[in-house]
Amino acid sequence: MQNAAEALRAVRQSAPLVQCITNFVTVNDCANLILAAGGSPTMAHVCGEVEEVIAGADALVCNLGAIEDVEAMVLAGRAANRLGKPVVLDPVAAGGTTLRRKAVQRLLAEVRFSVIRGNASEIRALAGEAASGSGVDVGGADVITAENLPQAVAMVRALARQTGAVIAVSGAIDVISDGERVALVENGCATMSRITGSGCMLTALIGAFCGAKDAECFAATCAAVAALGVAGERAEEKRLQNGTGNASFRIDLIDAVFCLTEEALSRAARITYL
Amino acid sequence: MQNAAEALRAVRQSAPLVQCITNFVTVNDCANLILAAGGSPTMAHVCGEVEEVIAGADALVCNLGAIEDVEAMVLAGRAANRLGKPVVLDPVAAGGTTLRRKAVQRLLAEVRFSVIRGNASEIRALAGEAASGSGVDVGGADVITAENLPQAVAMVRALARQTGAVIAVSGAIDVISDGERVALVENGCATMSRITGSGCMLTALIGAFCGAKDAECFAATCAAVAALGVAGERAEEKRLQNGTGNASFRIDLIDAVFCLTEEALSRAARITYL
Amino acid sequence: MQNAAEALRAVRQSAPLVQCITNFVTVNDCANLILAAGGSPTMAHVCGEVEEVIAGADALVCNLGAIEDVEAMVLAGRAANRLGKPVVLDPVAAGGTTLRRKAVQRLLAEVRFSVIRGNASEIRALAGEAASGSGVDVGGADVITAENLPQAVAMVRALARQTGAVIAVSGAIDVISDGERVALVENGCATMSRITGSGCMLTALIGAFCGAKDAECFAATCAAVAALGVAGERAEEKRLQNGTGNASFRIDLIDAVFCLTEEALSRAARITYL
Repeated sequence: MQNAAEALRAVRQSAPLVQCITNFVTVNDCANLILAAGGSPTMAHVCGEVEEVIAGADALVCNLGAIEDVEAMVLAGRAANRLGKPVVLDPVAAGGTTLRRKAVQRLLAEVRFSVIRGNASEIRALAGEAASGSGVDVGGADVITAENLPQAVAMVRALARQTGAVIAVSGAIDVISDGERVALVENGCATMSRITGSGCMLTALIGAFCGAKDAECFAATCAAVAALGVAGERAEEKRLQNGTGNASFRIDLIDAVFCLTEEALSRAARITYL
Repeated sequence: MQNAAEALRAVRQSAPLVQCITNFVTVNDCANLILAAGGSPTMAHVCGEVEEVIAGADALVCNLGAIEDVEAMVLAGRAANRLGKPVVLDPVAAGGTTLRRKAVQRLLAEVRFSVIRGNASEIRALAGEAASGSGVDVGGADVITAENLPQAVAMVRALARQTGAVIAVSGAIDVISDGERVALVENGCATMSRITGSGCMLTALIGAFCGAKDAECFAATCAAVAALGVAGERAEEKRLQNGTGNASFRIDLIDAVFCLTEEALSRAARITYL
Repeated sequence: MQNAAEALRAVRQSAPLVQCITNFVTVNDCANLILAAGGSPTMAHVCGEVEEVIAGADALVCNLGAIEDVEAMVLAGRAANRLGKPVVLDPVAAGGTTLRRKAVQRLLAEVRFSVIRGNASEIRALAGEAASGSGVDVGGADVITAENLPQAVAMVRALARQTGAVIAVSGAIDVISDGERVALVENGCATMSRITGSGCMLTALIGAFCGAKDAECFAATCAAVAALGVAGERAEEKRLQNGTGNASFRIDLIDAVFCLTEEALSRAARITYL
C-alpha cells in the first residue's frame, strides 16, 4: 500500500484535474488548496455541462454545502461511475435538515461513492444513528475520544461496508476505514475548527489524492488526511509565533500544503493502522 | 447596559450560531469573521431549509447583496420573529435599483428587524430620503460629518422609531440609535472602504453580538461596531508598518477580531452616548 | 497613445465603477483587485437589475465562469453598448463544453465587446481553431512560445479584426491586438498559474482600466496586463524571500497592485509594440 509521501508525489507528478461541485462559502479555498497540492481544479457545477466536464477530469468531489446542486451531483456522479473515476462526498450538515437528509439519501441511492468524509455528527447521520450535531459543526456528544474510539471504529467500518465507500471521520482523532482496514490519523490542530472550510478543503484534497495516477482510495484518503493535518500543525506554529489569528491561519494552511515536502510529510504524519 | 467588553465576553462564552443569508462576494469573509469573534456561522440560504436552520440558530443576518434570496430571507425572518430570535438586515445598495427598493419594502413589511445596518446612502434610501449613492458605496453628499451630524442623528432616530429596529449608519462617525438612545462610534480607518465586505462583515458581527446569551440589541450593536472599528485600527497600523495593501489588510482585520481582548476593546473603543 | 503609468493614474484619478458579472470562485478576489487598483466594484448579476446598474457604472466585465448568468450578460452588455460603455469578456473555458461554446456564440452575436481576454486555448476556441485545452487551463499544445509567436500574432490580429474587440491572450508572453497594433507583454511569473483567478482578476483589472476617464481600450489593456504582471513579479519575490506558498502569493499579488506606483510600473513594464 502506498504511503503518504508516495501518494503526495503521485499528485504532484500526475496533476489530477479535480471537478468540485461545492458551495459558495469555501469554493475559492478548495480551488486554491487543490492547486497548492499540485492538482488542477474545475468548479463547473451546472447540470448542462457537468457530465462533459467529468469526462475530462480525474476525480469528482460532491460537497453537500452546495445543496442547490444535488441534481448536478447526481448527473456528474453517475457519469463518473460509468467512467470509473473516483467520486468523493462531503455530507455537510447531513443530518441538519429534512432537505439534506433527503439529498443524502438520493445521492447514496444514485451514485457509488469512493470516499465519504465528514465530521462525526455527519457520518453518524449517514449511518442512521441519532446525531447530536445539527449544523455544520460536530455535536458535543458525537466527538470521538479515546474512550468511545472502539464504538466509533465499529460504526465507521460498518458504514464503509454498507456503502462500499472509504469512510473518513474528521476530529481530534481521524478514523478512516474501507470496511476491512482501519487507520487512525492524529495530525491537525484546534484552530482548524476556527476557520470555515477546513472540512471542505480536506474533502477537496482527498479528491486530488484519489484522482492521482494509480491512486488507491483508502491509501489516498489516509495520505490526504495526514497531509492537511501536518499542514495545520505548521500553520498553527506560525500563528503562535506571530500572534496572528484565524484569517492568517487559513492562508498559512494552504501555503503549508504548497510547501509540504514528501520528507516532511513522512516525518510528521501520525497514521496508525489498527 | 452592557459595555463593549462585556458584550464581547458574552459572544465568546455563548458561541452563538449565526445564520447568514448573504451574498457570494463576501460570504467567506463573513463566516470567518463570525468565527474570529467566537461565534459559529451557518450560511444556509435555500428556501427549503432556512426555517429549520434558524430554529437551531441564535440570530439571523439578511444581507440584501443576496438579492436572489429575498424569499428565503422572508421565510427565515418570519420564523426568527416567531421564535423571538434577533434578525439583522444589511440593505446593500438599497436605493440603487428598482429591484432592491421593492425587495427592501417587502422585507420591512414582512419581517420585524432587530437591527438595520448600512451606509448613509442606504439608510437614507430606507428613510425615504433622496440618497446620492446609488451603488454599494456611500454617495458623497450623504457622508456624515461634524457639520450635518445633528440632522443625521435626527434621521437615524426617526427611522429607528418608525421601524422598531436599532439603526446603525456606518461612516467616519457611526451613528446608532434605538429610537431613544443615540451612540456615536468613532473607531475604524479609511482602508476599510478599500476592501470589499467591510460592511457585510460588520453586519455579520452585529448578528453574532445580538445572538449572544442575554444580548440587548442596542448595546450589542454599539459593541460590534466598536469592535470592528478597533480591529480596523490595528490592521491599519500593521499595513502602514509593513507597507502592505488592501488584501493583507482584510486578513489582518479578521485576525485583529480573533486576537481582540476585552481589555483592548475597553481601552480603544470610542463610543459616545448623546 | 497613453502609456501604462498614465493609464494607471487615470484609474486612480477617476475611480471607475466596474460592474462584474463573474463567477463565485473568484468574485471576492476580482472585487478586491479592482479596489486595489483604485476602482470601485459592483458584482450585481441578476437579470432584474443589471441594466439599471450598468447605467451608473463605467465599464462591464462578463466572465463566462458565471455560465448561469449569460442572460444577464446579454442584457447588461446590450445596455452598455447602447450607452457607449466598454464591455470586457473573459471566455473562461470557452471551448470546453457545448454549453460554453453556445454561450460564447450567443454573446459574440448579441454584444459588441471592447476587449476579450483569455488564455491561448480559450482564444483559439473563439477563433474557431482546434484548441487542446478543454478546461480552465491552457492546453500544452496551445502555449505561445518564441517559436510559434508569429502564428499566434496573426491569429490574435485576425480575431481582433473579426470581432472588433481588442484581443488579449495571456501566457508567458501576452499578445494584445486591436486588429492593427500588436503589443507583447513579458511581465508576470509562473506562480500566477498556481492560484485560481489570476485570469479573472486580470480581466477585472482590464475593466477598471477601460472604465477610467478618457481610456482607450488598446492602451488600457496593455497597461492592465503589464500592471498585473509587474505585481506578480513583486509577489513572487516576496514568496521566494519568505518561503510562502500560493495563498500568500494571492494576497501579495493584490497588495502589489494596491502599492504599485506609476514610477514602478513605468520602470518594470516590459511592453513591446510590433
